[in-house]
Amino acid sequence: MSLTIIGSVALDSVETPFGETADALGGSALYFGCAAVHMHPMSIIGVVGNDYPMAELDKLAARGVDISGLERVEGESFRWKGKYSYDLQNRETLDTRLGVFADFDPKVPENLQSSKYVFLGNIDPVLQLNVLDQMAKPKFVVCDTMNFWISSKRDELLALMKRIDLLMVNDAEARELSGDWNIHRAARWILDNGPRMVVIKQGEYGAVLVTEDSTFYVPAYPLEEIFDPTGAGDSFAGGFMGHLARTDNVTRDNLRVAMVYGSTMGSFAVEKFSVNKLNEIGLEEIEERARKFADLVHFELEDLK
Amino acid sequence: MSLTIIGSVALDSVETPFGETADALGGSALYFGCAAVHMHPMSIIGVVGNDYPMAELDKLAARGVDISGLERVEGESFRWKGKYSYDLQNRETLDTRLGVFADFDPKVPENLQSSKYVFLGNIDPVLQLNVLDQMAKPKFVVCDTMNFWISSKRDELLALMKRIDLLMVNDAEARELSGDWNIHRAARWILDNGPRMVVIKQGEYGAVLVTEDSTFYVPAYPLEEIFDPTGAGDSFAGGFMGHLARTDNVTRDNLRVAMVYGSTMGSFAVEKFSVNKLNEIGLEEIEERARKFADLVHFELEDLK
Repeated sequence: MSLTIIGSVALDSVETPFGETADALGGSALYFGCAAVHMHPMSIIGVVGNDYPMAELDKLAARGVDISGLERVEGESFRWKGKYSYDLQNRETLDTRLGVFADFDPKVPENLQSSKYVFLGNIDPVLQLNVLDQMAKPKFVVCDTMNFWISSKRDELLALMKRIDLLMVNDAEARELSGDWNIHRAARWILDNGPRMVVIKQGEYGAVLVTEDSTFYVPAYPLEEIFDPTGAGDSFAGGFMGHLARTDNVTRDNLRVAMVYGSTMGSFAVEKFSVNKLNEIGLEEIEERARKFADLVHFELEDLK
Repeated sequence: MSLTIIGSVALDSVETPFGETADALGGSALYFGCAAVHMHPMSIIGVVGNDYPMAELDKLAARGVDISGLERVEGESFRWKGKYSYDLQNRETLDTRLGVFADFDPKVPENLQSSKYVFLGNIDPVLQLNVLDQMAKPKFVVCDTMNFWISSKRDELLALMKRIDLLMVNDAEARELSGDWNIHRAARWILDNGPRMVVIKQGEYGAVLVTEDSTFYVPAYPLEEIFDPTGAGDSFAGGFMGHLARTDNVTRDNLRVAMVYGSTMGSFAVEKFSVNKLNEIGLEEIEERARKFADLVHFELEDLK
């Protein structure tokens, strides 16, 4: 079932305790795409400048990432530069240059207007609403956002929330949005304000899916080596949506499985710089790691007797 | 199978955003005992001053908490006073008065020397070793500690670690002890330095059990109302050890079930001040909540097909 993301395609310069990279492939749509495409063909709506290394995108296209909705315009691509602390727990943004992204006015190509699974990556809620207006009748719409939009475009974000199925945010964003530090009350507040479901990503602790009548935890995959946390959340989203699209099934049980694929893809993303690890692995390796999650949480209360 | 804890029996004065309490029952041994006794009779080794409200302890004794190993000496009981931040994420110690605890030199009564399940609560590692030396042949020894001992009595703690089965600490303690911020490498370091198993408690995110060949996560029970986090970790330990003792089974599968009872008891502890909630509930309520953990993490990858 057709899967589309609107989001950023960027060039990232990242410094971690283990090395650094300059102008590497990055952005929410790219991480999402490199994760999701392992499971299902998908399309990116976004914009890049004429300085973007298109040969790299062409390689992705050959693997099933449709970039026909990616505008190429005169100017510089979106660039982000950041540095992580020694323990990867904090990061500092050293530079953000929006470039052609500053004037981005997304047009959904006709062939993508019928997309069934839609992910609205973290951009201005006005643009997210705009994209959603151009979609004919999506089956399942998921939205990401960030603290900047929560404070600066709160009304627009609240309007958008009434039109989506699931909000996917991290715990700090859930707290800021709801004004409640308790993550379960924050989740309840979000459900009371629009979406039927919310996924709260908790970094190294995993993620939680909350619906009206159910809470589901997936841990983060235990990794002794984390190289670069950039893009973990977007890769989680890609694995989550990729699984939903390939199965075309948004039942409670299948959403839980999607959480496992989300956590799986997030764990691969952080093992190397940029999307490098996501592009090296194959479906077999993904399925193998996903299966390992079962043992990470398995117990049988029958042992009590 | 006999279960004994050595630890503190204290009087806590706690301030949270929701209220305050003065000189309420507290201390690691008391939280542990009030949690564990729901599952199995247990014994406390500790010390209190002649100002301690013994009538309260007598009520616990009537429920199966053996306090024959609790010394009563002339002087003031151990008192702790603390204040939590608005979001309960941080706490400040306002006052610590060791009182009779300062000169505590634990003597294990003869009838407790044959204890099979032993929990060495967070006290000076020298005393923990001393207690362990007095035990005849325990089957399963678990030890807690804290940053203060990790820095001030490191050698003694490392010596102790070689004589225990499982170390139970929180994530900050695991990081400080191992000198490694990555929690999975920290766990590996701990296993390389003595115990066969380590439980790392992660507060609102749950806890993880790591052994040589297996990692198991249990989430924290989702609570919309947390009243007072004091004693959550000790109550976790009480539920964990209480289950092991009642089943007299330390297989991998049963340790996982013990983790669930640990998380269950930790979640009850934080719902009211002091040990009040732990003393209100019954085994039926405990089993009911423990059963709910299964659904919190349940998924079936078969749905993929």
